[in-house]
Amino acid sequence: MSEQAIKYLSDNRDQLLKKLHDFLSIPSVSTDSVHKDDIKQAASYLESYLNDIGFENVEQQDTGGHPLVYAEYNQAGPDAPTVLFYGHYDVQPVDPIDQWESDPFEPEVRDGRLYARGSSDDKGQVFMHLAVFEAYMKTEGKLPLNVKVCIEGEEEIGSENLYTMLHDKKEQFGADFAVISDSGMVAQNQPTILYGLKGFTGIEINVTGPDHDLHSGMYGGAVRNPAIALSHILASMKNEEEVVTVDGFYDDVEPLSDHERELIAKVEGEDYRESTGATETVSEKGYTAKEHTMARPTFEINGIFGGYQGEGTKTIIPSQAGAKITCRLVPGQDPEHIQSLLEKHVHEAAPSGVTVDVKKEKLSAKAYKVDPDHPLIKKAAKSYTEAFGKETVYVRMGGSIPVVEWIESIYNVPIVLLGFGTPDDRLHSPNESFPLDSFDKGMETLVRYWAEVNND
Amino acid sequence: MSEQAIKYLSDNRDQLLKKLHDFLSIPSVSTDSVHKDDIKQAASYLESYLNDIGFENVEQQDTGGHPLVYAEYNQAGPDAPTVLFYGHYDVQPVDPIDQWESDPFEPEVRDGRLYARGSSDDKGQVFMHLAVFEAYMKTEGKLPLNVKVCIEGEEEIGSENLYTMLHDKKEQFGADFAVISDSGMVAQNQPTILYGLKGFTGIEINVTGPDHDLHSGMYGGAVRNPAIALSHILASMKNEEEVVTVDGFYDDVEPLSDHERELIAKVEGEDYRESTGATETVSEKGYTAKEHTMARPTFEINGIFGGYQGEGTKTIIPSQAGAKITCRLVPGQDPEHIQSLLEKHVHEAAPSGVTVDVKKEKLSAKAYKVDPDHPLIKKAAKSYTEAFGKETVYVRMGGSIPVVEWIESIYNVPIVLLGFGTPDDRLHSPNESFPLDSFDKGMETLVRYWAEVNND
Repeated sequence: MSEQAIKYLSDNRDQLLKKLHDFLSIPSVSTDSVHKDDIKQAASYLESYLNDIGFENVEQQDTGGHPLVYAEYNQAGPDAPTVLFYGHYDVQPVDPIDQWESDPFEPEVRDGRLYARGSSDDKGQVFMHLAVFEAYMKTEGKLPLNVKVCIEGEEEIGSENLYTMLHDKKEQFGADFAVISDSGMVAQNQPTILYGLKGFTGIEINVTGPDHDLHSGMYGGAVRNPAIALSHILASMKNEEEVVTVDGFYDDVEPLSDHERELIAKVEGEDYRESTGATETVSEKGYTAKEHTMARPTFEINGIFGGYQGEGTKTIIPSQAGAKITCRLVPGQDPEHIQSLLEKHVHEAAPSGVTVDVKKEKLSAKAYKVDPDHPLIKKAAKSYTEAFGKETVYVRMGGSIPVVEWIESIYNVPIVLLGFGTPDDRLHSPNESFPLDSFDKGMETLVRYWAEVNND
Repeated sequence: MSEQAIKYLSDNRDQLLKKLHDFLSIPSVSTDSVHKDDIKQAASYLESYLNDIGFENVEQQDTGGHPLVYAEYNQAGPDAPTVLFYGHYDVQPVDPIDQWESDPFEPEVRDGRLYARGSSDDKGQVFMHLAVFEAYMKTEGKLPLNVKVCIEGEEEIGSENLYTMLHDKKEQFGADFAVISDSGMVAQNQPTILYGLKGFTGIEINVTGPDHDLHSGMYGGAVRNPAIALSHILASMKNEEEVVTVDGFYDDVEPLSDHERELIAKVEGEDYRESTGATETVSEKGYTAKEHTMARPTFEINGIFGGYQGEGTKTIIPSQAGAKITCRLVPGQDPEHIQSLLEKHVHEAAPSGVTVDVKKEKLSAKAYKVDPDHPLIKKAAKSYTEAFGKETVYVRMGGSIPVVEWIESIYNVPIVLLGFGTPDDRLHSPNESFPLDSFDKGMETLVRYWAEVNND
């Protein structure tokens, strides 16, 4: 049956890409308040598209922050399963803007890739779902299963209000299982089932020395330089063997089983030089880069700042210096506990003569693992394999999707992560892109999966 | 004789302060090209003031960069000594602008202090000299000695073209001695003879990891984070005892004699907490803060930067991180040699997986020391003591004035540093100010000094 829907997608490819182009052209950056209206526009785009397709009860729900787009389809009947589809229409900031080869909000196709902020994370993948729903409605007049759509606008700022919405509207959002397409494949055209995700936590450190910038000639030698103090603190948190040296950091980490290390070894791509441009692949002592990225906790400085950064020289002792730090966590680690360990370490490592403030990042999530042998997972693997013509691999990934943890804790239903991104998509970076090839095969995967799910 | 000039200065105080107000209102920031016209305006202000006073051959000399204002007075006759007066009309940037209590370029008097960028460094002190010349001309119709005026517009960006000008125009700028007012007193109303200055050098470090910002979830664990690499490099350059740990850094330092340590001990102000707002006074192990600031070399991070610094969180591994470093040097240390030691250390301390670029700061200067018993120095001390009614102290200071080294090397004449700034002036910082009391007594000191110089 699903062949018609697949044909519809290829027959109408240009018109669909045009529609996607309009969606990606909206600069829906959630972290920056100047884009508030753009966020609204992106939500309205989804609202009208869902109405056009034929969804019911389409609405922009007030979250207290950016609106959540909700819709439902109930015509598959009471015997058909109901899926909760989650995605997000907000995107990361675009700086450094000067490193983009084309305008991040003027989608452009180069060498078979569609370049635009959000093309992969996550507007592009959200659009694929809507296009597939459109294809089913236009060819068969109905969807193979009941659907509840939940597309938020705050994922890139920690889904601040999503937990409350999912929790308070349990009745409305309730479903038999959930599908999320906000992840990727280990390689282009390598069907990948994600059965594990990392957790997440973070802190911001601010070190204050003098209460104003000082002339380095008059005061150099009499006060502690906060930027040097910061360097000593940061250097004490992770060593050159890429081992986190914060006391207790690894205490609750579930050891990596030999079986999993074998699974991980099967996945290609241990050399990260080409995809990152780094001169060397570097990982935690005792673990391969794949093991570290997939299944070991990480510690990263996301930003460091202080003093004069402008043109020329400014001979000062800066009043302040700081750093933003985030950690990716694995099963066993508790985000709040890790935050406390980081905070304790920073205060203990701080030298005299400076005041150190540690701000705990609100956004945090536990790691997640699902049973790779669940029927809904097996069906997903089958659909992937048929659409891409290649055997599906099972992996864990370093990314964090708080919503996964929340859906599990609130609804306790299986969650299927159908990701279509590729390692070269440059998520969160300049020149984010998505392969049109994955766009086509990904949509075919979804068409097949919806048919499979309701076919026992 | 000089009493009339002193009386003129007090009788015309308001009109002179108004004139100074106009000068300080010009945002002559030399490091930022957007202020190019303001620089020109400040130079023109000086040109017309010098003409009004009665100087000859007043001109804005083309340096290739910002103009140098030259003028001369030759009517004191061939038997009178000739002084080369040096100052600068450019100022430091004003950021962080939000920390200013009043507009940096709208001078405002609060609690007896004049608040404005440049009020102390150096427009305020340059103006005092011009006002004193005006006072002599208006009261006695002549100056007590011949004068050559050299006021540059590039001091805050390293006086890039001054050396060439002083060198190529040796004939025109030649004088019997030089006077520079671009320094300060150890305390307000404490007459201070500066007989030693520190040298200066600097580098900028840029660490590159991946060739673009990476998603910390997808790549965390596979590449070196440049901000962490930078922290390890910086932490290895100066320890928590404030000792520079760069190999060879102290090798050529002239040891501090017991006699000098006694002189330094006589100077008040070992506790820097109040003037800096720091929680503690911290100095090199084995030396007091006064000894460290006056006579021991220093190492400071002036700025540190990399990755995401904006609102909210951005979970990236940044592509780059860097730091601006400057050192203050003492007699014996060669700036270029120290730069090479810093560069060598940075490359040796850099971990694998990152590329480190070290840019050597063009601006550099050797340290300077003058004989405190030279007659021209003694006369300066006498004038100070008479004007301020307090015994003059002799000190060395941490500041660097490259022009001092250049005038010495090119003209080989005595250099008298007549500084009137105070430790609370907040040079290079928000809320720079200058005490009106020092403005009055400083001008009286100059009036007396010019009379003394030509009185044997």
